[in-house]
Amino acid sequence: MTYCLGIVTQFGLVMAADSRTNAGVDYISTYRKLFDFSLPGERVILMCTSGNLSITQAVISGLRKDIKVQNDINLHTLPNLYEIARHIGSKTRQILDQDRVWLQNDGIDFTCNFLVGGQVKGEDPELYLVYSQGNCIQATAETPFLQIGETKYGKPILDRILTFQTSVEAAAKCALVSIDSTMKSNISVGPPITLVMYHANSFIVQNHLELPLGDPYLAKIRKLWGASINQAFESMPDIEWKRNVSPEDEQIEID
Amino acid sequence: MTYCLGIVTQFGLVMAADSRTNAGVDYISTYRKLFDFSLPGERVILMCTSGNLSITQAVISGLRKDIKVQNDINLHTLPNLYEIARHIGSKTRQILDQDRVWLQNDGIDFTCNFLVGGQVKGEDPELYLVYSQGNCIQATAETPFLQIGETKYGKPILDRILTFQTSVEAAAKCALVSIDSTMKSNISVGPPITLVMYHANSFIVQNHLELPLGDPYLAKIRKLWGASINQAFESMPDIEWKRNVSPEDEQIEID
Repeated sequence: MTYCLGIVTQFGLVMAADSRTNAGVDYISTYRKLFDFSLPGERVILMCTSGNLSITQAVISGLRKDIKVQNDINLHTLPNLYEIARHIGSKTRQILDQDRVWLQNDGIDFTCNFLVGGQVKGEDPELYLVYSQGNCIQATAETPFLQIGETKYGKPILDRILTFQTSVEAAAKCALVSIDSTMKSNISVGPPITLVMYHANSFIVQNHLELPLGDPYLAKIRKLWGASINQAFESMPDIEWKRNVSPEDEQIEID
Repeated sequence: MTYCLGIVTQFGLVMAADSRTNAGVDYISTYRKLFDFSLPGERVILMCTSGNLSITQAVISGLRKDIKVQNDINLHTLPNLYEIARHIGSKTRQILDQDRVWLQNDGIDFTCNFLVGGQVKGEDPELYLVYSQGNCIQATAETPFLQIGETKYGKPILDRILTFQTSVEAAAKCALVSIDSTMKSNISVGPPITLVMYHANSFIVQNHLELPLGDPYLAKIRKLWGASINQAFESMPDIEWKRNVSPEDEQIEID
């Protein structure tokens, strides 16, 4: 399983990913899922991947190669992040055209998703989710985050904390707590955790963090957040039970 | 969608459920999902349901009828909660034997799940999850809760708070926060919320709460918990970025 998320606010972008990959439950390994295609000073392009590893690796390789051989159309020449997201969708369609029938024949799930975040000079920072089908959606000011993979455990904290006015520092902290919550509830999401923070209009990714298994900072975050949640929980007032009812009433009311 | 949960600790039992039912996204209605089959003073039996409404209603009706006509085998005669859980599984199998082919023909999901919690005199409080297939699992001291329906959004708080030593009062508060988190993240889970708290060895359900849409107490819980989470989040230290790296280094390290 995978958990990746992207957050875009008026102040910039945060992207984060775990690194656990499993083929079935008995073959678990570690693959990077966050990739940087930036052209420092000109454009920042960050990508996270989830889903079928052979497909996502083929897409990433293709994108890299296009930059290396200076194809006319590559991530460094496309005019804006929407075109970049659509281009990644096209690449995915090409790979799926080659492999779909073979994977389908053996009942193998070939779906995959990408988060694509960044900023091209002259544009605002943007964040997209590209689907296996090649189409995409964009994060907006109303919902300034997108997630792929095992998304549910880590969503409540994002729902409660993030707005388009959140600072990138707070967004990064929130991303880390969201990933920690996911790791605590689903063992198939795991370290190393990769976290990148980008300040709008800087066109350079200056802050990144790689937290391997057993990293003391990761342990500290988990311990502190666990303690904070417990404290928050204890500060909640006890339930105001409306009344004690007789068994007969109870029976009628509940049943 | 549905979210129901049960918690069993050494001090008793808590069960809670939302009441939203939807057939597709455009037909949303309200059905009770928590049922009380207790025989006060003798045994407490509480049930929550999720999944295909026609199946769960048929099971509940059948169980009620068996008690009413005093069938030899009914929820008030079975000797312990495991037998009760297996009996509910058998009822489910009977209904599915009648309906499965017809539902399958039209591609209708006929799965359903039940939580069954309670205490029979001479036994400890117990909690079971009964599957559509008629088999069941039991909550244990290591993992003292079970969930059915939309389980993921509300699981992190349970993972962080609950142990087998948690008081029933705290377990009830935790259940309410877990349901509130689920409602905040998934609109297809909704009020009225039904919550029941049972103290071990009392053999009477004395505390229950029904919180309809717009109930001020539900609004208060949401506001307080939201504020507590935000406060907890703000008390977390900022991320310790290891260093600022030059764009070239960054490119190599992340890509």
